Amino acid sequence: MNTGNERLESQIRFIVEIDRLKSVFRQTRLMNGERRENDAEHSWHLAVMAVLLSEYAAEKDIDILRVTKMVLIHDIVEIDAGDTFVYDRTEAQNRSEEERRAADRIFNILPHDQAKEMRELWEEFEARETPEARFAAALDRLQPMLHNYETRGGAWQEHGITSDMVIRRNKHIAEGAPALWEYAEKMVRDAVEKGYLNR
Amino acid sequence: MNTGNERLESQIRFIVEIDRLKSVFRQTRLMNGERRENDAEHSWHLAVMAVLLSEYAAEKDIDILRVTKMVLIHDIVEIDAGDTFVYDRTEAQNRSEEERRAADRIFNILPHDQAKEMRELWEEFEARETPEARFAAALDRLQPMLHNYETRGGAWQEHGITSDMVIRRNKHIAEGAPALWEYAEKMVRDAVEKGYLNR
Repeated sequence: MNTGNERLESQIRFIVEIDRLKSVFRQTRLMNGERRENDAEHSWHLAVMAVLLSEYAAEKDIDILRVTKMVLIHDIVEIDAGDTFVYDRTEAQNRSEEERRAADRIFNILPHDQAKEMRELWEEFEARETPEARFAAALDRLQPMLHNYETRGGAWQEHGITSDMVIRRNKHIAEGAPALWEYAEKMVRDAVEKGYLNR
Repeated sequence: MNTGNERLESQIRFIVEIDRLKSVFRQTRLMNGERRENDAEHSWHLAVMAVLLSEYAAEKDIDILRVTKMVLIHDIVEIDAGDTFVYDRTEAQNRSEEERRAADRIFNILPHDQAKEMRELWEEFEARETPEARFAAALDRLQPMLHNYETRGGAWQEHGITSDMVIRRNKHIAEGAPALWEYAEKMVRDAVEKGYLNR
């Protein structure tokens, strides 16, 4: 549609494009077990968590709006690249190339200034070098653990994941939010005790 | 799970509770038409729009983090109350009572300070009296219009909605974001021309 407002048209094109994230499915199941969760729902859940759990961030006075933006857009590249299960690292190298190409294509639908801002937020999230990115990454790991716990093992059971693997792959939660890692460790122990997770 | 951290436990209980928003379906279909959209996906989409379209808010210097929080939680009461199609106003009175009860139950799962903050944000959104709430409400109306346009009529066609009804029910977008209303009006005219929407 031609409206004479090119900037707004690009923004709307991006908003239309990212609707496809609602059709990118993850390994994690909804907490009621009825189906797999998609990336849009997952990103919404993380954004609410960013708002409610910021008091647990490792560093004080982090920028919550920046964390929220990061988690809202962190998976958008999966529109082209698809989701990778966190315990599957066989294709890590190819994948990062694919994700960069996806970022090039998708963020550049936006006007230049916003394309740059979103790309930088995505790179920041991936690099995990700022307090905001470490906190965002902690939420991104805690959320599927909650789903797997609530579904009595869910994707852990389906893929034969053990408690050692859960600890190893998620322990960087401690760098972004020590109290959340403490909670997560207790949850892992409890999950083993209850038989949701193999030792 | 008893962890000795009562505050964090309540926050996690709330985060687990709101997973149910992923199973509350709206009339709007995904832009690819394949199924209806749920409230969690819708809220994610609005949050991204809040970040990207804030330059069009009617008033300058609005608090984007507050807008983002509002759109992230604005539909949480629908976990108990269900979704109401925006063109269906027959039960408006009962509904607002039901939604208040839902807000009482759900937000109070949180620690008191956060329950109060979330409840106030929800009331602010509903009342539409602040610049932030008017902008949030504008996004909440624009997004399903984009979905209906992209699905060549979608829920408009299904429910026999006419262009007059679309204009009447959505014109308050102009109060929150005049440029977005200008865009929306053009989209309605274009939808009529293309036969997506009856005059």
